[in-house]
Amino acid sequence: KQYRIAVIPGDGIGKEVMPEGLRVLEAAAKKHGVSLHFDHFDFSSWDYYEKHGQMMPDDWKDKIGKHDAIYFGAVGWPAKIPDHVSLWGSLIKFRREFDQYVNLRPVRLMPGVPSPLAGRKPGDIDFWVVRENTEGEYSSVGGRMFPDTDREFVTQQTVMTRTGVDRILKFAFELAQSRPKKHLTSATKSNGISITMPYWDERVEAMAKKFPGVKWDKYHIDILTANFVLHPDWFDVVVGSNLFGDILSDLGPACTGTIGIAPSGNINPEGDFPSVFEPVHGSAPDIAGQGIANPIGAIWSGAMMLEHFGEKEAGQSIVEAIERTLAERTLRTKDLGGNADTTACGKAVADMVD
Amino acid sequence: KQYRIAVIPGDGIGKEVMPEGLRVLEAAAKKHGVSLHFDHFDFSSWDYYEKHGQMMPDDWKDKIGKHDAIYFGAVGWPAKIPDHVSLWGSLIKFRREFDQYVNLRPVRLMPGVPSPLAGRKPGDIDFWVVRENTEGEYSSVGGRMFPDTDREFVTQQTVMTRTGVDRILKFAFELAQSRPKKHLTSATKSNGISITMPYWDERVEAMAKKFPGVKWDKYHIDILTANFVLHPDWFDVVVGSNLFGDILSDLGPACTGTIGIAPSGNINPEGDFPSVFEPVHGSAPDIAGQGIANPIGAIWSGAMMLEHFGEKEAGQSIVEAIERTLAERTLRTKDLGGNADTTACGKAVADMVD
Ligand SMILES: CC(C)[C@H](C(=O)O)[C@@H](O)C(=O)O
Ligand SMILES: CC(C)[C@H](C(=O)O)[C@@H](O)C(=O)O
Repeated sequence: KQYRIAVIPGDGIGKEVMPEGLRVLEAAAKKHGVSLHFDHFDFSSWDYYEKHGQMMPDDWKDKIGKHDAIYFGAVGWPAKIPDHVSLWGSLIKFRREFDQYVNLRPVRLMPGVPSPLAGRKPGDIDFWVVRENTEGEYSSVGGRMFPDTDREFVTQQTVMTRTGVDRILKFAFELAQSRPKKHLTSATKSNGISITMPYWDERVEAMAKKFPGVKWDKYHIDILTANFVLHPDWFDVVVGSNLFGDILSDLGPACTGTIGIAPSGNINPEGDFPSVFEPVHGSAPDIAGQGIANPIGAIWSGAMMLEHFGEKEAGQSIVEAIERTLAERTLRTKDLGGNADTTACGKAVADMVD
Repeated sequence: KQYRIAVIPGDGIGKEVMPEGLRVLEAAAKKHGVSLHFDHFDFSSWDYYEKHGQMMPDDWKDKIGKHDAIYFGAVGWPAKIPDHVSLWGSLIKFRREFDQYVNLRPVRLMPGVPSPLAGRKPGDIDFWVVRENTEGEYSSVGGRMFPDTDREFVTQQTVMTRTGVDRILKFAFELAQSRPKKHLTSATKSNGISITMPYWDERVEAMAKKFPGVKWDKYHIDILTANFVLHPDWFDVVVGSNLFGDILSDLGPACTGTIGIAPSGNINPEGDFPSVFEPVHGSAPDIAGQGIANPIGAIWSGAMMLEHFGEKEAGQSIVEAIERTLAERTLRTKDLGGNADTTACGKAVADMVD
């Protein structure tokens, strides 16, 4: 089968890292006999917005809704366009309208990346953060009353549905079950957030009964962030609400040295809609245009995309090529103390794929 | 003037660390000519609940509402009593009903405490987390619909009032202005939490105009937690909502090696009601009764209480005594690689006060 991939580089360094991601995908596809077809799109970017006054064409769903996946660079340029226009007009729209209810990110300490945590070595930190990606704290329900007076107040609802909570928990428990440690940690805050979080806990308990082979525990989000720093070796699969997952999936990669190389998948597990694979980093206006951005986040996201297709060997070959590349100082980009530029680093990974 | 202090040891190791806190307070008071009067209370504990079926007597406000401060140990014992009974029946009640709208916690790397962050030394990490302590995400507004069906959902509102947001920001900006670096960082998430967080940002901008001498910046909470690990030296005063402040004030102390020694104040700055000073750690049922708990969190909280009274020298003398004690391995408790028990450590600090 041929996989059809919509490629959206977006803004800033998104445009610089994507060619390297594609280079590596093509190398892996060739080696492993996987057939990939790429369609390129210029929307979901400041450039497109400047010309058309909107982030995406009206028929964006027709254009990319039938692809097997969307391979995405980065979006946003706060100095030119407010986040709620750029992000809610593209990335968050994809998550909602393509029902990408899983946000999946690996947290893994890689060779060649110095850990900010004292004494941790590759192998010590290796877990997944599974984040609910469509509801929870990111709701649009709420508003403001008594504006511009002393009585002014705003409210915003957190919304958790049985459907929304159960399906992300099911995904997380299944992932835990597939791993050697078979361990799941749930992020809660039921001692302070007294309505939605006890509900989350209740659903975790119910789901756990269906996965008797998985050991599980839960921590309040405050002490859980502390434990990411103090005991990152405790974790295997960590599941959280939209907000808690967002926090943990930046903090986790930071504990492994840099969010510059972290990948992510916004996944619709049923395959009714395309999933989006993108580096965790943003468009980084401060370094855009210099050719120095680290392409590993984009490349690793490509590997996640192949694994999502079921092409495990091809995906794994990319992850191993990344590990071998990072281990060589001369092949790393500046942010990791190396001296390669974006292209040299991308080419190195492509060459390492086997 | 004589300061009247209500002493509430509470549960578990709360009962073990409080005598040491009192020992050190008495030593500092004597040296610095400060007059302290202590009244002891047994409520806000599992013991009290077991006897009376409630956490506190009906007239708890009459009993402790006129004191100059409440010196608190720890509350909660999840195996015996659910958090929403123990915590919401005491600690969170104090915060709400005594309008302790500031939760203040130092994040400071102390001598003798190995940092989990590679290469950080005492002096490198030294900032304050200022947390809104009465509203925000910890609301009781919300509920459940369609229970026990597939359509089940729960909602909970985050509520931010002009009064509530402005007063915590004012406190934080004033604190920043009083410090050498005069720098404030605001925790936000306005790119995802699209109603309440943009309002928070708006009020930060308005308040900043009144403090032209304070440099300020803001980070989304996800990358902010990452920066606590990667760049803890960037921070001076960090202000956040009830939830964000809660997270940051556990993560911060973790980055300085242990939440076992961290102190906190739940402060009503106007002095209309007593403020509560308590260690950040909980009742720790797993080690309770062994006499090995680290009393530094309680002792340091006592120092914060004296500074809150305006007795800066007496408070400072305790902080310095803590630093000198921690520097000696034999005076530290087991959790910090020492061999002192709770009492020996408390006596050491008391002896060091000058
Ligand atoms: C015990 C819990 C309700 C409390 C909170 O979340 O406020 C605690 O974590 C704290 O920080 O004092
Ligand atoms: C850009 C922002 C809205 C987004 C989020 O909070 O979901 C980002 O932080 C992420 O994690 O993908």
